[in-house]
Amino acid sequence: MDGAPSPASPAGLSAYVVVSQLLGLTLLVTTGAWLGRYRGGVAWHSPLQFNVHPLCMVLGMVFLQGDALLVYRVFRHEAKRSTKALHALLHGLALVIALVGIVAVFEFHQTKGIPDMYSLHSWCGMAAFVLYLLQWLLGCGFFLLPGASFSLRGRYKPQHVFFGLALFALSIAVCLLGITEMLLFNIRDSYSHFVSEGVLANTLGVLLVAFGLVVGYVLTRDDWKRPPLAEELALSMDFKTLTEGESPGG
Amino acid sequence: MDGAPSPASPAGLSAYVVVSQLLGLTLLVTTGAWLGRYRGGVAWHSPLQFNVHPLCMVLGMVFLQGDALLVYRVFRHEAKRSTKALHALLHGLALVIALVGIVAVFEFHQTKGIPDMYSLHSWCGMAAFVLYLLQWLLGCGFFLLPGASFSLRGRYKPQHVFFGLALFALSIAVCLLGITEMLLFNIRDSYSHFVSEGVLANTLGVLLVAFGLVVGYVLTRDDWKRPPLAEELALSMDFKTLTEGESPGG
Repeated sequence: MDGAPSPASPAGLSAYVVVSQLLGLTLLVTTGAWLGRYRGGVAWHSPLQFNVHPLCMVLGMVFLQGDALLVYRVFRHEAKRSTKALHALLHGLALVIALVGIVAVFEFHQTKGIPDMYSLHSWCGMAAFVLYLLQWLLGCGFFLLPGASFSLRGRYKPQHVFFGLALFALSIAVCLLGITEMLLFNIRDSYSHFVSEGVLANTLGVLLVAFGLVVGYVLTRDDWKRPPLAEELALSMDFKTLTEGESPGG
Repeated sequence: MDGAPSPASPAGLSAYVVVSQLLGLTLLVTTGAWLGRYRGGVAWHSPLQFNVHPLCMVLGMVFLQGDALLVYRVFRHEAKRSTKALHALLHGLALVIALVGIVAVFEFHQTKGIPDMYSLHSWCGMAAFVLYLLQWLLGCGFFLLPGASFSLRGRYKPQHVFFGLALFALSIAVCLLGITEMLLFNIRDSYSHFVSEGVLANTLGVLLVAFGLVVGYVLTRDDWKRPPLAEELALSMDFKTLTEGESPGG
């Protein structure tokens, strides 16, 4: 950093990022309102343990995962190494919170004698979590640790980007499935009479889709991609010339 | 066409397209097997009218929509005008089939006295259908009819591409919601015992996700995008020079 004012972000990007964060916070508030007002609240060692699950999954697998994807667009003028570390850190935090949510539902099932992993929600949800963990491990291995060559990183990056967005979309779809399951288990008979709990939970579903759309739009706009900093370009050219095929961290 | 052999497709693309089509056909067979074996089959004027809905939605909103998205990758060496017409035609067919599926469920609800549009599945599904219809109308207006200038087409195209893929993903998510609803309405008590209907319908859900992933991967790989033909490049340069800002079809 040379103390010069940071170059401006592309027009519109900041507005979309603000909307995404407002939607993300609204998601969390709406989930909290649903669980607090209609499902008795949240607690670990109690019959309310189940409610830890939706809260953790929306926070971890949607809000934090989405924000982790956005860091390269938001911190576009920071050093790549710091942005990469924040990207990995936010995804790591999302994974830990999601794991707490998964433990909560397995413990709840055990207490109640309910079988695990029979529903489409559980199949898709477990697949999303395991693949997300794998994606994080591969991401750290390829991009954060030294060892992978420039050419290997270059070949893996498009796969990492595609699966990152695909897993984010799948995570949102799994949340929609979870909302539908919860409503049909809890208010099956009154759901069709447009009771307020059903309308609130449907609204949460629509907000999840809206968050996914805004984050997806920001990530896929070509002219909003993070441009390499001048010093990165120079460094990358030097490294490529000197160590073609070797590790950039070697 | 000058009679010369067509240039080859990029390595791997054909294999992915074949896998997508095998998955698509498996989707349809699995849906048919579920409805035929466990839900009494499909008929219009009968209590089986409901079953027209899942069959039409999987065929229209997933299989045909997915294939319509793939045409620019598959018919990469054909004239753009023909490929564009096929793209619009397949999406149009998907819309008509989806409309039949929607009419089926509304008529079924009316016969049974079940309220419409109360569930998250119906909210997201109706949004997906209406936005898909809008996307089709805008696509025809901008790209198929004369009138829109090169620069207007160029500005709209990235939005058309993003929303095309987003609506395809949403359509798949809505199908997963529909599967979950059907299972919880029909086999709620036995679902957790891993009965064969539940396992089959869950498998259908996983196949839907797999179809979406393969189609999404083919569409987003940069090096698999359709390259402009030599005559299109020349024509486009001529038109741009002659009619900058005017309609290419004017």
